[in-house]
Amino acid sequence: MTSMDATVAAPAAVFSVQRLVRFSDCDPAGMVFYPQYFVMLNALVEDWFTEGLQVHYADFLGARRLGLPMASLQCDFKAPSRMGETIALHLRLLRQGRSSLTLGVQCTGVAPQASLRWSAQAVIVTTSLAHDGPIPLPPDVQQGIARWQQISAGDRP
Amino acid sequence: MTSMDATVAAPAAVFSVQRLVRFSDCDPAGMVFYPQYFVMLNALVEDWFTEGLQVHYADFLGARRLGLPMASLQCDFKAPSRMGETIALHLRLLRQGRSSLTLGVQCTGVAPQASLRWSAQAVIVTTSLAHDGPIPLPPDVQQGIARWQQISAGDRP
Amino acid sequence: MTSMDATVAAPAAVFSVQRLVRFSDCDPAGMVFYPQYFVMLNALVEDWFTEGLQVHYADFLGARRLGLPMASLQCDFKAPSRMGETIALHLRLLRQGRSSLTLGVQCTGVAPQASLRWSAQAVIVTTSLAHDGPIPLPPDVQQGIARWQQISAGDRP
Amino acid sequence: MTSMDATVAAPAAVFSVQRLVRFSDCDPAGMVFYPQYFVMLNALVEDWFTEGLQVHYADFLGARRLGLPMASLQCDFKAPSRMGETIALHLRLLRQGRSSLTLGVQCTGVAPQASLRWSAQAVIVTTSLAHDGPIPLPPDVQQGIARWQQISAGDRP
Repeated sequence: MTSMDATVAAPAAVFSVQRLVRFSDCDPAGMVFYPQYFVMLNALVEDWFTEGLQVHYADFLGARRLGLPMASLQCDFKAPSRMGETIALHLRLLRQGRSSLTLGVQCTGVAPQASLRWSAQAVIVTTSLAHDGPIPLPPDVQQGIARWQQISAGDRP
Repeated sequence: MTSMDATVAAPAAVFSVQRLVRFSDCDPAGMVFYPQYFVMLNALVEDWFTEGLQVHYADFLGARRLGLPMASLQCDFKAPSRMGETIALHLRLLRQGRSSLTLGVQCTGVAPQASLRWSAQAVIVTTSLAHDGPIPLPPDVQQGIARWQQISAGDRP
Repeated sequence: MTSMDATVAAPAAVFSVQRLVRFSDCDPAGMVFYPQYFVMLNALVEDWFTEGLQVHYADFLGARRLGLPMASLQCDFKAPSRMGETIALHLRLLRQGRSSLTLGVQCTGVAPQASLRWSAQAVIVTTSLAHDGPIPLPPDVQQGIARWQQISAGDRP
Repeated sequence: MTSMDATVAAPAAVFSVQRLVRFSDCDPAGMVFYPQYFVMLNALVEDWFTEGLQVHYADFLGARRLGLPMASLQCDFKAPSRMGETIALHLRLLRQGRSSLTLGVQCTGVAPQASLRWSAQAVIVTTSLAHDGPIPLPPDVQQGIARWQQISAGDRP
């Protein structure tokens, strides 16, 4: 295995959450207003950090004064989601850079309406409010990712 | 007991949810931006209908083309809530009118920081999109309230 | 006139803004989702500070590290506002306390549909992030209020 | 010029709006929370339809029961925007398809801090709520685009 390979996440590791589509998420057509999907995406990253990587997100942004801004986002919307549906968001780590993480995210319904709603590729960067710029991925984030990938791999046959 | 008393809810019945204070809820001071509390209050009513009263909220607003607009709202804010905290919202039915429900809502932290954050009194009205005005509380809402109050009473000593 | 009276604002002074009701403000019924009204109310206070009182709101909250949290809010909703309408928000200062301002706010349509949509009474408090508590109204806020009331009075016959 | 070229918009035509970055747009780092940029993008399209194309947006979505969902979105974030800044959003029509419009959008500061904040490419589709699917660009949208491009071209030397 080359050092390049080492930065490529095991594709098996997936972090998923489910969520009710609420009245407040929906637009006059009764469908999720798409900026709300990115509020959900932010919550997904929050939960992935705190629960998946065991890096407390609120401390990361608060006490530690680090940041996780979005650097780029690409999203294809395939089908609408409607008020009252339960949807699932699935996060995979596609690439681990020196100071960035490339995430692949899929939003689906849940059975029996498990169709794809949208899929996105998002690059988030680790920054420091003190330096006002990118910093290398902190060690606890690196270790959290390695542990999460191992555990997720262990979940699967 | 008078017929007037019959419209007063047993104070014991409480519907509660807990919720993480997320990055997206917070303002530049790192505290919940108060309009977000009312988004949470709307979600609380949503869950109370669907889970507490067994009246499916999304059907109520969608397929049945009924509405639950807010008629009046009074809120006292006591202490801020910060990113990363878990807060709880507690709903009590204070008064059941012909076409309105008066709700008492309290938002607290959870132990060990269970202090009161805000308390509100909210009057919601049942309306019909077809009639464009108030309608009497539908029978399933009335029955759901009676059942919820009995079950909640049974929960307590 | 007593010194107590001196803290009561001249009722003539009104700060008003107009605003299009946008798609993003509206719920699945095509009406403004009421928490959005409070986002608009916050923007109204922002503009009143910066334009009406000549106290730069973003500096107040940012560089000066002061705060303007809502202490209490009472709102009566009278009629819905729909996507595509222009609505107006009107702010009056009802009471000037030592460290609080009581605002009366009315939201109306604009002619020919100038009916009242909601009216609110809101108490905002001046705080310091450093002290984590209320502070007396800063001198520039006091002076800004006095000037705004004089100018507004001068506008009228 | 081929008929294919005819569907490519004159690059000169730009629709721009300016907007204050408000408290409610910002996250705990005091910067615009990026989903808010897409709320602004939606407002930009709204204004472009109503003012630029002379196709009333609220009627389009409301009375005419047509839709303008986002089909795909690609966005690169270059620099943050902070509370109190004025930012500008600039829309260009990159491609006019049978039932889609590809928009190029840039968000910048205004002089003297006119740096690029983000740029996006967005594909919106014209749909009908009745058919629940794409429909050809309605004639008034096509005519509005042609007129807007001519007028915009006339604005320039």
